[in-house]
Amino acid sequence: MDYIKEFEAFKAKNLSLDLTRGKPSTDQLDLSTSLINFDTNEFVENGIDIRNYGEIKGLETCRRLGSDILGCNQDYIWAGGNSSLSLMSQFLTFLFIEGNGAGPWGNRERVSVLCPVPGYDRHFKLCETFGINMIPVDMTGEGPDLNQVQHLVENDKSIKGIWCVPKYSNPTGEVYSLEVMEGLLDIFSSPENKGVIFWDNAYAVHDLSDHISLPDIFSLAEKKNLEDLVIQFGSTSKITFAGAGIGFIAMSRSNQELFLPFYSALMIGPDKLNQAKHVRFFQENDLTDHMRKHASIIRPKFDLVDSKLRLQNFGTWTKPEGGYFMLYKTRPGFAKKVISLAAELGLKLTPAGSTHPYGIDSEDAYIRIAPTACSLDELDTAMDVLLCCLGIAEEQANRET
Amino acid sequence: MDYIKEFEAFKAKNLSLDLTRGKPSTDQLDLSTSLINFDTNEFVENGIDIRNYGEIKGLETCRRLGSDILGCNQDYIWAGGNSSLSLMSQFLTFLFIEGNGAGPWGNRERVSVLCPVPGYDRHFKLCETFGINMIPVDMTGEGPDLNQVQHLVENDKSIKGIWCVPKYSNPTGEVYSLEVMEGLLDIFSSPENKGVIFWDNAYAVHDLSDHISLPDIFSLAEKKNLEDLVIQFGSTSKITFAGAGIGFIAMSRSNQELFLPFYSALMIGPDKLNQAKHVRFFQENDLTDHMRKHASIIRPKFDLVDSKLRLQNFGTWTKPEGGYFMLYKTRPGFAKKVISLAAELGLKLTPAGSTHPYGIDSEDAYIRIAPTACSLDELDTAMDVLLCCLGIAEEQANRET
Repeated sequence: MDYIKEFEAFKAKNLSLDLTRGKPSTDQLDLSTSLINFDTNEFVENGIDIRNYGEIKGLETCRRLGSDILGCNQDYIWAGGNSSLSLMSQFLTFLFIEGNGAGPWGNRERVSVLCPVPGYDRHFKLCETFGINMIPVDMTGEGPDLNQVQHLVENDKSIKGIWCVPKYSNPTGEVYSLEVMEGLLDIFSSPENKGVIFWDNAYAVHDLSDHISLPDIFSLAEKKNLEDLVIQFGSTSKITFAGAGIGFIAMSRSNQELFLPFYSALMIGPDKLNQAKHVRFFQENDLTDHMRKHASIIRPKFDLVDSKLRLQNFGTWTKPEGGYFMLYKTRPGFAKKVISLAAELGLKLTPAGSTHPYGIDSEDAYIRIAPTACSLDELDTAMDVLLCCLGIAEEQANRET
Repeated sequence: MDYIKEFEAFKAKNLSLDLTRGKPSTDQLDLSTSLINFDTNEFVENGIDIRNYGEIKGLETCRRLGSDILGCNQDYIWAGGNSSLSLMSQFLTFLFIEGNGAGPWGNRERVSVLCPVPGYDRHFKLCETFGINMIPVDMTGEGPDLNQVQHLVENDKSIKGIWCVPKYSNPTGEVYSLEVMEGLLDIFSSPENKGVIFWDNAYAVHDLSDHISLPDIFSLAEKKNLEDLVIQFGSTSKITFAGAGIGFIAMSRSNQELFLPFYSALMIGPDKLNQAKHVRFFQENDLTDHMRKHASIIRPKFDLVDSKLRLQNFGTWTKPEGGYFMLYKTRPGFAKKVISLAAELGLKLTPAGSTHPYGIDSEDAYIRIAPTACSLDELDTAMDVLLCCLGIAEEQANRET
């Protein structure tokens, strides 16, 4: 394979390709088109005009939809605006200004959270913005390494929590095991180590083939009287519309009592009209069927990336059962170079290091691939470009040794 | 008038009336019904699929709508979600965690803001929640008393800003004069007193009769090179839907540069589908005409309250030219009693003191009346109830002296 020649040929094509973000494609968004229009005789629900102020926790019916998606008790769930990230930031603001019973985080010299790596850049950005110290923890294939978590928590009293994407973790695609879930609850339950488990269940129903059912962490926690440790998040961003879906936050009753007055001061209530549209849509469309339609659009893209990568044997990669990402691991020291070569050819990849806190991937080896947004044709070209860049990096390295 | 007899008669009716919140009535919400449904072939705007992620500052076309409403430069405006209060809380979070150039507010022993009184309870609640010390300033009929503002700012270095509702101020209904606007800019511009002018222009186009045009504070500020002092807010909550409208935040380019990275970490982007619907609605419906329709529904309610109050001569009240509130001032020491008597009869009024920081109205004299939400019939009864309660309080006081 003459990678150099191929590189020049790609360059001449002035490509514009993007594998950076976990965005639904147009045909996925089209699956929910019938959600948009609404019978304008249906404005009153439980005596509430859904166009007006009120219902800070969201419509009852929409909270029920949230519980269908996240698989937890409806009483734990609030339905918010179009972004679970906003709910995360509002809860962090609460922790900073008021704290969940143990004083404001903002008053502490140093607050740390554990960040399983490779992980989600938006969580890292949020922490960095709030000045939260991030401590990486390795992923094992079934969630974070519990021995590391335990060791760190016991030896660093500044650790106040951990970020988790328990199902099809972004970007490794792994699913947390029951043992890991129980272990995290146990570790963060000891009075000296009490911490918040930020449970970002973003891909709860986003299976590529068979539905994998993650145990409900609240049910596990309730058996141990530890339900106050967990704050769960989710959304319909990758179920209906990425920019105009519904975000959810879920927490125990006592956490709700603490958070509600704060949250009520921050906002006037969610967009109930959009909530009602979502509710009606899922009365008319079965959630499982709907997610199967997504899978049938997405799965071929994951398969294509996998089959393309099989044409080389330079690195390793994941082939997840759901979620939005594949993760390619190059030999150490290759990621930056490959991503920069790809940029030269008009292929955008998430910046090297973005899978790690502070953008520091000390191995310089991880490349996150988000195959969903583009068409199969574009993806085909994008993967050829990526293979070409991987090939060039490999050849350069071989020449140098 | 036998108020006691009337009181008993009202009591027997088991009324349920509510004059607490500045909510649009059902017929006002109906004015925007055609906004709800959307031509589903119109998803792409400027190459952006409005159903997907992105456009953190909001759709260009919606930012233009914001500038039509607020009367300021479109480049200053971002279009957000359904609540300007959320934007206020996000900007406050920014000030606390990062600060706008002079260090995080959260690091200071004491941060104070000036709160013109009587004022808006949601501003007070937000400050209280963030632990911001509130210092009341008297209103003059054309905005806050500049002498007081100047004196306070010069003598208390903890003062970092002021809350303003410049047009039809909640709840006094007054409109800030040009002199007050210029004066506030000048006072907060001196290097030692630099502060944020929170310009909550909630009722920018909410006139009851003729349109009163408030000068654009950014234009005034630009002439003095002081545009960085002002953060402006607005929304369509009382133009389209109170729970499902569009919130706006407006600030200078250099403030945008400071705030954008922080804001981008907090959220993924606004609901552009709802923004596009609003844009299209106001392409088809002239904003001024639309607001005249609101006025024609609301004005009779303000007139009714006024004519009812004229039947007694126990207190004084405002008759504003726009906005959502009237303010009744009893003799000192009456407000709590009247509000509690009204509650006995099933008429909800905003709690006594809610027009003042920390709920402390030292005169115990202010009763905010929000006449818009109920029907004219309900309002008629509600005012009879209020007059009855005012009469009883007056008679009790006369007996005691």
